[in-house]
Amino acid sequence: MTEPGSPDLDVHGEGDEQATHGYITDKANYLARLKRIEGQARGIHRMVDEEQYCIDILTQVSALTKALESVALGLLDDHLKHCVVDAARMGGPEADEKVKEASDAIARLVRS
Amino acid sequence: MTEPGSPDLDVHGEGDEQATHGYITDKANYLARLKRIEGQARGIHRMVDEEQYCIDILTQVSALTKALESVALGLLDDHLKHCVVDAARMGGPEADEKVKEASDAIARLVRS
Amino acid sequence: MTEPGSPDLDVHGEGDEQATHGYITDKANYLARLKRIEGQARGIHRMVDEEQYCIDILTQVSALTKALESVALGLLDDHLKHCVVDAARMGGPEADEKVKEASDAIARLVRS
Amino acid sequence: MTEPGSPDLDVHGEGDEQATHGYITDKANYLARLKRIEGQARGIHRMVDEEQYCIDILTQVSALTKALESVALGLLDDHLKHCVVDAARMGGPEADEKVKEASDAIARLVRS
Repeated sequence: MTEPGSPDLDVHGEGDEQATHGYITDKANYLARLKRIEGQARGIHRMVDEEQYCIDILTQVSALTKALESVALGLLDDHLKHCVVDAARMGGPEADEKVKEASDAIARLVRS
Repeated sequence: MTEPGSPDLDVHGEGDEQATHGYITDKANYLARLKRIEGQARGIHRMVDEEQYCIDILTQVSALTKALESVALGLLDDHLKHCVVDAARMGGPEADEKVKEASDAIARLVRS
Repeated sequence: MTEPGSPDLDVHGEGDEQATHGYITDKANYLARLKRIEGQARGIHRMVDEEQYCIDILTQVSALTKALESVALGLLDDHLKHCVVDAARMGGPEADEKVKEASDAIARLVRS
Repeated sequence: MTEPGSPDLDVHGEGDEQATHGYITDKANYLARLKRIEGQARGIHRMVDEEQYCIDILTQVSALTKALESVALGLLDDHLKHCVVDAARMGGPEADEKVKEASDAIARLVRS
C-alpha cells in the first residue's frame, strides 16, 4: 500500500486499495502466521529472561525457524506464480530480472 | 530475574527458583538480540499487511532467520560449555544424557 | 536423451543427441563441479577410513554440502529461466505445474 | 590404517600413529554410507551429463544433502560423546578448546 508507482508490477486486485503487490494468495493466513511468529519470538525472549533450560529454548528457536521458513516458501511460491509467470507472459527482459531476483532470494533462504 | 549484573554467567539457583540454568554467558546481550528479532517479526507482519514487494519481504525473512540462527548457535555453545562439560566432570550417566540432548537439538537446528 | 518430445522445452544444442532438457546453461561447468564433488565424497570416505580428526572431517562435509548447494541453486536458476519462463510464455495450465514443481524442489532444498 | 575389523570403534592410538581418533562408534556403517554418498554424487553427474529433467536432478541433490547431513550429525554426536566429554573429564583448558571447535563445526553445518 506504500509506494505509489512501482510501474513494473502488475496490480492484481484492481479497485482494492491495498493490493499494490497483490500477489499474496491468502493474506489473512500469512498475517495470522506472522502474528504467531511474533508471539513465538516474544516467548523465546521470556524463556531467556527466566533462564529456562537451554535445550527447551533451542527447541522453540527451531520451531520458530521452521514457521518462518514455511512462510518464506509460501511467499516465494506466490511470487513465482504471480510475478515471475506474469513477467514471462509479458515477454521482454523483465522476466529475466524477475527470475534473477527470485533465484537470489532462494539462495538467501537456502543459505540461511 | 532480570538480573542487574550477572557479570557473565552462572548464578546457578541462588535461592531464586527460576535462575536454575544460569548458563547463559551474556544474558543482556541475548535479550537485546531477541528484542530486535521480535521487532523484525513485527516488521515482516507489517510488510505483508502493506503488501510490500515479495522479494523485499523474503530478504527480511532471511535476515530474521540468520539472527535467530546466531542466537541458537550462541545458546548451544553456552550449553556445551556449561551443562555438557559440567556433567562430564561430574561423571556418571548424566553426561551421556546431556550429549544426547545436545545432539538432538543440533539435529533440529541443522534440519530447520 | 530419454524422452523424445517434451515439446515445451527448448532444445539447445540441436543436433546433439543428448540435449533433451537442454536447459543447462553451462553443462561442462556443472560436470566439472560434480566431478569435484564426487572426489570430495571419496576424500571424506578416506578420512573416515583413516580415522582422521572428526572436526576436520566435518569441515570437509560442510565444504561438500556448500558445493552441492551451489550446484543446486544453479540448476534451479536455469530451470526457472528456461522451463518455468517458457511454460509461462506458452500459456495454459502447464506454467502452474512447473511452478508447483519448482516450489516443491525449493522447499526440499531449503529443508535439506 | 585401513583396518579390517574395528568391530565398532575405539582403537585409541594403540601404537598406531594414525588411529589417534578412534572416536567413531560404527566405522563400517559410516564407510558404507559414504560409499553410497559417493555413488549418489556419481549418479547426479550422470544425470546432468544425460541432461535429465532438472527437477529430478534437484531431488537427488536434496537426497544427497540429507544423507551427508545425517553423516555429519552422527560424527558430531560421536565427537561430543568422546572427545568433548573426555576432555572435560581430564579437566584443564582443553575442554574449552574442544567445545569451541565443536561449536565452530556446528555453526558451519547449520549455515551450510
